[in-house]
Amino acid sequence: MLFGTNNQMHGTLYRLVPDVIYQGARGQEGGGRVWRWVGKQLAHTEDTPLFGPYIPVLIQPVVSGSQPHPGQVKEHHCLSTYSASTMGNFIQGCKDYFSQQKNTNIRLTLPVVCFVWQIAMIILFGVFIRYDEESDTHWVETKAHDNITSDIENDFYFRYPSFQDVHVMIFVGFGFLMTFLKRYSFGAVGFNFLIASFGLQWALLMQGWFHSLDPQTGKIFIGVESLINADFCVAGCLIAYGAVLGKVSPVQLLVMTLFGVTLFAVEEYIILNLLHARDAGGSMVIHTFGGYYGLTISWVLYRPNLHQSKRMQGSVYHSDIFAMIGTLFLWMFWPSFNSAITDHGDGQHRAVINTYLCLASTVLTTVAISSFSQKTGKLDMVHIQNSTLAGGVALGTAAEFMISPYGALIVGFLCGIISTMGYIFISPFLEKTLKIQDTCGIHNLHAMPGVIGGIVGAITAAAASESVYGKQGLINTFDFTGDFKDRTVLTQGGYQAAGMCVSIVFGVAGGAIVGSILKLPIWGDPADENCFDDEVYWELPDEEEEHQESIPPILEYNNHMIHKRQDLSESNFSVEHCES
Amino acid sequence: MLFGTNNQMHGTLYRLVPDVIYQGARGQEGGGRVWRWVGKQLAHTEDTPLFGPYIPVLIQPVVSGSQPHPGQVKEHHCLSTYSASTMGNFIQGCKDYFSQQKNTNIRLTLPVVCFVWQIAMIILFGVFIRYDEESDTHWVETKAHDNITSDIENDFYFRYPSFQDVHVMIFVGFGFLMTFLKRYSFGAVGFNFLIASFGLQWALLMQGWFHSLDPQTGKIFIGVESLINADFCVAGCLIAYGAVLGKVSPVQLLVMTLFGVTLFAVEEYIILNLLHARDAGGSMVIHTFGGYYGLTISWVLYRPNLHQSKRMQGSVYHSDIFAMIGTLFLWMFWPSFNSAITDHGDGQHRAVINTYLCLASTVLTTVAISSFSQKTGKLDMVHIQNSTLAGGVALGTAAEFMISPYGALIVGFLCGIISTMGYIFISPFLEKTLKIQDTCGIHNLHAMPGVIGGIVGAITAAAASESVYGKQGLINTFDFTGDFKDRTVLTQGGYQAAGMCVSIVFGVAGGAIVGSILKLPIWGDPADENCFDDEVYWELPDEEEEHQESIPPILEYNNHMIHKRQDLSESNFSVEHCES
Amino acid sequence: MLFGTNNQMHGTLYRLVPDVIYQGARGQEGGGRVWRWVGKQLAHTEDTPLFGPYIPVLIQPVVSGSQPHPGQVKEHHCLSTYSASTMGNFIQGCKDYFSQQKNTNIRLTLPVVCFVWQIAMIILFGVFIRYDEESDTHWVETKAHDNITSDIENDFYFRYPSFQDVHVMIFVGFGFLMTFLKRYSFGAVGFNFLIASFGLQWALLMQGWFHSLDPQTGKIFIGVESLINADFCVAGCLIAYGAVLGKVSPVQLLVMTLFGVTLFAVEEYIILNLLHARDAGGSMVIHTFGGYYGLTISWVLYRPNLHQSKRMQGSVYHSDIFAMIGTLFLWMFWPSFNSAITDHGDGQHRAVINTYLCLASTVLTTVAISSFSQKTGKLDMVHIQNSTLAGGVALGTAAEFMISPYGALIVGFLCGIISTMGYIFISPFLEKTLKIQDTCGIHNLHAMPGVIGGIVGAITAAAASESVYGKQGLINTFDFTGDFKDRTVLTQGGYQAAGMCVSIVFGVAGGAIVGSILKLPIWGDPADENCFDDEVYWELPDEEEEHQESIPPILEYNNHMIHKRQDLSESNFSVEHCES
Repeated sequence: MLFGTNNQMHGTLYRLVPDVIYQGARGQEGGGRVWRWVGKQLAHTEDTPLFGPYIPVLIQPVVSGSQPHPGQVKEHHCLSTYSASTMGNFIQGCKDYFSQQKNTNIRLTLPVVCFVWQIAMIILFGVFIRYDEESDTHWVETKAHDNITSDIENDFYFRYPSFQDVHVMIFVGFGFLMTFLKRYSFGAVGFNFLIASFGLQWALLMQGWFHSLDPQTGKIFIGVESLINADFCVAGCLIAYGAVLGKVSPVQLLVMTLFGVTLFAVEEYIILNLLHARDAGGSMVIHTFGGYYGLTISWVLYRPNLHQSKRMQGSVYHSDIFAMIGTLFLWMFWPSFNSAITDHGDGQHRAVINTYLCLASTVLTTVAISSFSQKTGKLDMVHIQNSTLAGGVALGTAAEFMISPYGALIVGFLCGIISTMGYIFISPFLEKTLKIQDTCGIHNLHAMPGVIGGIVGAITAAAASESVYGKQGLINTFDFTGDFKDRTVLTQGGYQAAGMCVSIVFGVAGGAIVGSILKLPIWGDPADENCFDDEVYWELPDEEEEHQESIPPILEYNNHMIHKRQDLSESNFSVEHCES
Repeated sequence: MLFGTNNQMHGTLYRLVPDVIYQGARGQEGGGRVWRWVGKQLAHTEDTPLFGPYIPVLIQPVVSGSQPHPGQVKEHHCLSTYSASTMGNFIQGCKDYFSQQKNTNIRLTLPVVCFVWQIAMIILFGVFIRYDEESDTHWVETKAHDNITSDIENDFYFRYPSFQDVHVMIFVGFGFLMTFLKRYSFGAVGFNFLIASFGLQWALLMQGWFHSLDPQTGKIFIGVESLINADFCVAGCLIAYGAVLGKVSPVQLLVMTLFGVTLFAVEEYIILNLLHARDAGGSMVIHTFGGYYGLTISWVLYRPNLHQSKRMQGSVYHSDIFAMIGTLFLWMFWPSFNSAITDHGDGQHRAVINTYLCLASTVLTTVAISSFSQKTGKLDMVHIQNSTLAGGVALGTAAEFMISPYGALIVGFLCGIISTMGYIFISPFLEKTLKIQDTCGIHNLHAMPGVIGGIVGAITAAAASESVYGKQGLINTFDFTGDFKDRTVLTQGGYQAAGMCVSIVFGVAGGAIVGSILKLPIWGDPADENCFDDEVYWELPDEEEEHQESIPPILEYNNHMIHKRQDLSESNFSVEHCES
Repeated sequence: MLFGTNNQMHGTLYRLVPDVIYQGARGQEGGGRVWRWVGKQLAHTEDTPLFGPYIPVLIQPVVSGSQPHPGQVKEHHCLSTYSASTMGNFIQGCKDYFSQQKNTNIRLTLPVVCFVWQIAMIILFGVFIRYDEESDTHWVETKAHDNITSDIENDFYFRYPSFQDVHVMIFVGFGFLMTFLKRYSFGAVGFNFLIASFGLQWALLMQGWFHSLDPQTGKIFIGVESLINADFCVAGCLIAYGAVLGKVSPVQLLVMTLFGVTLFAVEEYIILNLLHARDAGGSMVIHTFGGYYGLTISWVLYRPNLHQSKRMQGSVYHSDIFAMIGTLFLWMFWPSFNSAITDHGDGQHRAVINTYLCLASTVLTTVAISSFSQKTGKLDMVHIQNSTLAGGVALGTAAEFMISPYGALIVGFLCGIISTMGYIFISPFLEKTLKIQDTCGIHNLHAMPGVIGGIVGAITAAAASESVYGKQGLINTFDFTGDFKDRTVLTQGGYQAAGMCVSIVFGVAGGAIVGSILKLPIWGDPADENCFDDEVYWELPDEEEEHQESIPPILEYNNHMIHKRQDLSESNFSVEHCES
């Protein structure tokens, strides 16, 4: 679909092109570069100045399944400026070469990575993973041995409802939260699905080796709590995905997840086991680590020309509503997230109440700041979708403590303000000054609130007292048993703070290393102008077919031509509509 | 996008505007009025007769982020009729003045209300709210003291799965059910989110003061059941939101919620505590009250010129599917809603079975009536989205009783018929005759089925017998203990009926008072022509950019011109495209 | 919207129609046939060769609520080819007669079926269905009698969270999975809702009669496990719906569900009770049966001219995302599905772990095969939406066995490959060679993985040993009690395999019979050209109003005319815009 005319010849200057090529035309060149007609220009020639006389160009939309039509030429670079200048040709050649290096063909790498890694999982599971005593058929003997009178005492019934909520957060929550981009919803929800599915297997192994390897048998015994922990571990990597959303290939994401889970298991071991910090909802272990891991990777992978796909970086009306599905399921089930692995009984109960209250408070201050930041008081969906969740992040550590209901409200109050401010002021600063391109603003939703959560946790721990917790309650809550039975709450507060530092260090250092690995030109990442576009990695339906159809392109073309070059308009071009 | 020509100079009359301004162009004037290009006219000049010669108009679309273009003038009222007539100018001036009073700028009010109220919540929570004994670290001592052998006896494990289902109903269920409007989905799901988050905090306080204030300590002790009750209380206000959806500002909604929760707590206290009526699923307390509260407010806020935004009052294909997400989550989790606070054991179990059956039955009769009401038997999504839920509402009171499975089916059977009939016959009647504009038809989904539920509850209670319930079962089910240990089932039936009357009275009287407050011109409600439009309170993405782009406006303009004034068409117009 | 011109008079051949009628125009003829303007042709004249001179045609779009405009004629078959040939007229007459037989008016049948069947349900429930001892108010006596110390021992608390997850799978999972079609989302989610609501009532009766009819009282006692089983039974029919999606009327679906549930209850009785096979997650009972039942019905209802609605058979961008909601809720809650009715304690626990792992593995191999099957490695949403679930199907039987974690991974690994291959190779083969049109590809998602699941179950059962399961564990897992206490694992494996054969036989034979019934021309099924179109059974919103508006059709028409017959263009056509 096609055309152009030399308007100078008639003394009249039109911007012809945008009027004729239909909106949303898509195609892919041999080199793998994808172009798409958006606004006034082809996407990947967007920054080419549109000066000078235009010669007719003929562009053939490559809708999936369509066959090139005889007589149609695919050459969308034949602006006469180029043909008039050898220098221009040379420069264009260089440009083409450079962009051709971005080979997004992942037909080999993606299947190989998936297959090999999955086979590795099977082998490692065969060697290491077994059912624990509560999910094994020998449970009947365990019950008899331990004088357990009822099956309801099986940990399954304490944790399964929370597990399912967490599971929904991982797959629907994180997946749909990232669907806000107008044309990256497949990638958001699909790649989220892929890397979470791989990550949870690898997490069961890594966390098993570090936390629950039985020294006698050399086996890892898993139960429902292991599944929750695996989901938690995956959450860290999905957070990191938020920073690089739309800018990486699924292969890069899998690599990022492999290393992310590995790093996670190590830092978690250091924080929870060696430092004996408490972090049931993962403010430090999950959110701070995941946030800085993702931000550092995004910093290493900085794309100076990302503005070339700026037009794809926004949302459309319906994509924002899809994202609200993610937001709400995260928001509603966050009490389950923060309570999923806390102590049976009052521990789970209290964590739920605290998180519930904290999140409610966050919503109000998010709305307040969002409204206040606009001249006319309008609300911004970005804030509502993201900042409303900051309270849950920030209460990850302290949710199981006796922070008291109003304490939870205060944390939520502050987080709503800080997170929304982050979207307004800090994100632009990060991008401009620190060169960190953070697609979903995970700095404001995870990294910063995670750090706040670490601090809140340290303070709340340090301020704990026997009068509030009760003697046994204090021991239970902070697990002051075994090697740690003499630890004081002040010391505990110090270790909590130390834990937070560990998570930051792991996030930044790990991110730098993994980012460097991901920079290798073998992972099939998209060119700058093709970022945030599902076209690169997905077979897309011919969505706008109807709209495309409804605008018969040659007609408009005729309009232009008609009083100028009627002879040309009829003879030079033939329009064929490739119906899929 | 823009343009215009002085047609008078050439003695030709065109209806220029509709052919040239692209569809969906949006903007906002200084006075806060929003205009949008729909069909053949600007939205808020829709009823201006388009007679007389038009002078050139130049309209600049204010898409978010775009800068006014030099040379573009924003003046879309300069029809020559006005300049030709002083009288016309005067009338227009009055009109403008009137509509300018609808200042939808909520940049001050919304943040202030959110901040002040949230701070008030923190202070009140600090003074009053504490963890109850099952969510406090002293639970370990409570267990020892009460000879509780297992943490699983903590009420958390009896109620948490139901709580999470109710939570989903409140935020996803109610939120998405209201997304059916083509351009108010942000408002539906976003404001629902906001007012529910505020309401649940205020509900914990109000319900605490009335139901569980400890006289000795002056504290309110909360646990998972309190959270469920707070969600229930919020549900009443969200129901009321359904009646005024699209016609009020978020500040009005917050005011409505503040008073709604307050009224709810009082009527609930009267019905459940003083009258000792049973209403586990809230047919009376939640649905009847919420329904009449919302309808009365809508009656007070009656907008005679609401037809001016009629074009926005419908759905589009995808918004109807979003609404089905809300419908289904409400429908699926309604068994949890009706059983969430019923007695442990058989009470919860029976309430689930009854609600499950009742709702299934409702679906069939809803489909039957919906199909029968159309000439060709086609189904109407409005009925499927709403009337299928009526059975759950109507079983709110009786779900925990021994209504028996076929009794539940009968209730569902009738409710499907009545509710669907309501959408077909009663809603138009209410709007035309009683001047009640009920956006979501809450009269058919909540008010009427709520009343049915109250009646069913009264009858079922009065018909209860020891032969069916068993001696202890009867006492347990109706809580005939303490002051009420001598009450007979017939008396109970009478009190149930009395309870229903109380809920109606509170709904109507409360709605009238709150409606009057909301009528004050300080809350930033939208003008009649801007109702049902997210544009007023939300930063909207440039959604139809693609489609807009694909319709080059100047071309159509040329088309018109071409065989009339070809010389003019080329010289007078310049096309500029404001890309965001 | 309308138009036409007698081009023959001017010796010029235009393809007028496509340029003038706006895209998406819809209407319905007296005979019930629906037409829609898509691409270049009216939908139901698509295969009419568009040769020869066209006489003027005038088409009036019947958008809901619009009134016929005076002067507009609705006659879209008046191509001059017909008037030129008596033979042509005759053939067309026959065609018209035949297609007029497809009377999709279900205004009588649908309400009657819904009403009569629902009343029958009420009567049968009144006669047969009662609360079981755990949901009856006599539970307090049961507790005392059985020395049950806590309400938490009520089966409700073991099963309710799983029940709710299964419930979500049935209504949101299956419903939204089928929304992928661009214009059949209402039918997908709405009819799914309808037939599931009917099916679960009938299933409670059928399963009750076969499995739990109390011989003494002649009553069926139901509790939460009955509700789960009813949902399971419905799942079989919803699977079958997937094969015929878009090609049947709601009345046919109800008939299909009536018989489907009946057959299900019988085959389930044979497999689980007579053969004493184990099938907790229903690989055989649900998926194999449902799959072959649906495929056989689709085979009987084969439509040779289904290509006439091919344009409606694809997805659009947003419908694919809606479908992912279904996919993810199915995927996430499948562990609940497979564990919902397994043994308390370790049985449920183990089934969850196995299913969780198996599904994770499936995702990776699905992605691998999907990517590898495309030239450029792009992923196909059809595979991600469906094949990722195959693992859950295939573990339905073995999930409760000691298949071990790596065993579960292997099953998932293979199922991802086989199911995706099925979509690529087998589905086209089935359609072309075996004449089975399988809209959702249930052969690849349910039938084939179900058979695999049966085989895996048989092998795992046959390989069970006391050393792995423990003596008591083996008895518990395979329920080797009562009549079956001497059965060996090898025998059990044989009976498992026999069970699978039974389910296939019931599916195929039942499908053949029910398909024949559905072939009767009284059920209101759509014509070939109206398949996959919600227009037939739903009142649709005027969705594309905006886009329609934005493309003033006469303008483009003028474009054509202008340099040929300017005099004509102004005199022959009148443009009317039917605003809804």
